Amino acid sequence: MAETARRPDHRYGNRPTMKDVAARAGVGLKTVSRVVNGEPGVTPDTERRVQEAIEALGFRRNDSARVLRKGRTASVGLVLEDLADPFYGPLSRAVEEVARAHGALLINGSSAEDPEREQELALALCARRVDGLIVIPAGDDHRYLEPEIRAGVATVFVDRPAGRIEADTVLSDSYGGARAGVAHLVAHGHRRIGFIGDRPRIHTAAERLRGYRAAMEDAGLAVDDAWVSLGSTDPGRVREAVASMLALPEPVTALFAGNNRVTVTVVRELAGRARGVALVGFDDIELADLLGITVIAQDAAALGRTAAERLFRRLDGLHEAPARVELATSLIPRGSGELPPV
Amino acid sequence: MAETARRPDHRYGNRPTMKDVAARAGVGLKTVSRVVNGEPGVTPDTERRVQEAIEALGFRRNDSARVLRKGRTASVGLVLEDLADPFYGPLSRAVEEVARAHGALLINGSSAEDPEREQELALALCARRVDGLIVIPAGDDHRYLEPEIRAGVATVFVDRPAGRIEADTVLSDSYGGARAGVAHLVAHGHRRIGFIGDRPRIHTAAERLRGYRAAMEDAGLAVDDAWVSLGSTDPGRVREAVASMLALPEPVTALFAGNNRVTVTVVRELAGRARGVALVGFDDIELADLLGITVIAQDAAALGRTAAERLFRRLDGLHEAPARVELATSLIPRGSGELPPV
Repeated sequence: MAETARRPDHRYGNRPTMKDVAARAGVGLKTVSRVVNGEPGVTPDTERRVQEAIEALGFRRNDSARVLRKGRTASVGLVLEDLADPFYGPLSRAVEEVARAHGALLINGSSAEDPEREQELALALCARRVDGLIVIPAGDDHRYLEPEIRAGVATVFVDRPAGRIEADTVLSDSYGGARAGVAHLVAHGHRRIGFIGDRPRIHTAAERLRGYRAAMEDAGLAVDDAWVSLGSTDPGRVREAVASMLALPEPVTALFAGNNRVTVTVVRELAGRARGVALVGFDDIELADLLGITVIAQDAAALGRTAAERLFRRLDGLHEAPARVELATSLIPRGSGELPPV
Repeated sequence: MAETARRPDHRYGNRPTMKDVAARAGVGLKTVSRVVNGEPGVTPDTERRVQEAIEALGFRRNDSARVLRKGRTASVGLVLEDLADPFYGPLSRAVEEVARAHGALLINGSSAEDPEREQELALALCARRVDGLIVIPAGDDHRYLEPEIRAGVATVFVDRPAGRIEADTVLSDSYGGARAGVAHLVAHGHRRIGFIGDRPRIHTAAERLRGYRAAMEDAGLAVDDAWVSLGSTDPGRVREAVASMLALPEPVTALFAGNNRVTVTVVRELAGRARGVALVGFDDIELADLLGITVIAQDAAALGRTAAERLFRRLDGLHEAPARVELATSLIPRGSGELPPV
């Protein structure tokens, strides 16, 4: 059948069925099935009546519908940024649990931090008829999703905001978290504090850098350019950044690591050095408790849960302007962030 | 259109197209498109001819095909066991990279260690027309996949074997790895060695237990029932197991942890105790190097890569009996497994 527009106001779990189409067209269920499945044996006039009912009701025959007919579930899609980043594990699992509680299946894929792949994946999930989409964006222009959103695909952005479209968004307070972490180092006597972060085009990386600069300014500390290093989280790049900040005539006495990938490498690099350098990392890491690493923790599960709950409220028919929810972070002092300057 | 059987010998990238159908039926492309999409304007006779060509060629109109027509990619599915287990991160990413190299999209989902959810998810991915499926099984009966496999969905099992069907399988040598790890503890003088593992219905857990028993027997050591604890990897359960083995009149002097989830809890539990207990854990863990944890490492990325490469060889037309590939593990001594008995 032709792809019919999905009514933007369709209600989840209350979609028109083939039975509804049959009733409206005044034909039997088998006839609707024939038309929908393109089987022969239907007169052109009957076919037209069925097609009109389909259009009028906004019925869509799709894989989900076929799955539903077998007594199975609808689905929502999650576009991740990196399948191997442990930060996304609890986030994904939380989304999955909410989806499960709503009787829906979760399908994931990863953009590998490539805007083109993000678009390809998001549209491929839509082509596979997900009812809703949660996106951790790699790109900064999401206008490509507008036709899908108009067609009724509920969409929520998480971890990073949508670009150039209005959409529900759930973020952690990256700015406030980084600001608090750097203020913590200042409070322990540090004046020369380095910041090693991810590529600045990534929203969270830019926000954390902004938080660092704000905390330094709050303390009346000018930031030396040599104290800031932004780029890929590749271990080699991060190791070099640590080495060069510690090799300055007046080396930094503390480091703020912009995310968990950076922190892991910084911890390894500092472990091999005699002089104690203070460290606060953004994101908690497994076993950081045993290693005494002070962190600014995001609640990754809460991010996923909040985004998924928003998505299902939309699917349940919530009509209101897109909202931006920002979740607080928390500082967990474990030793590395409380070292005095040496 | 009616769902046509997929020819089991179809070749990936060489599928019949609507053009092929048009040529065989002796009609124009638009006519095929009308039939396939259930649009009106086709005489019953023409429709029959097109349907016959569709059946004869094994053409299937599906979401992938629609995606391909837009210049996008085919897809393979990956059924994971737990979205939050870091072990599956590198495995998933390796599968994704191979899929990407073959121009295919990867779609994931998780069974959450529930055989019913595994089945639901695997079939839902098939309903969404993945070309192939990589499964980390939660269940032990995969006959439900037989119709899909007959219909041409290439299927490879990884990490754990398929149950009650013949299928390509890629595993780590859990038995050999555990045996080597326990032998390592024996070589460092331990005689009372505990084993804390996952639920024994999980293939890898059972194999690792078998490896433990073999190493103990190799060393002529009888295993006390109180030294073996199997069950969920829930931290509370694992903590209790550690506590009870260390509270025995003759406590164990070493522990073998059956997987990364168990190891993390054992490490935390041992960190709070004065007496040094030796530990070897199955699976490497991030930052285990800094904590001096001796492990039996699996190459999770190689598991994923090997499974994905096998899948694409099948999709490229490989015809041979299902094979079972077993990848070696490696012992990484870092201190905890080299402690002497106390």
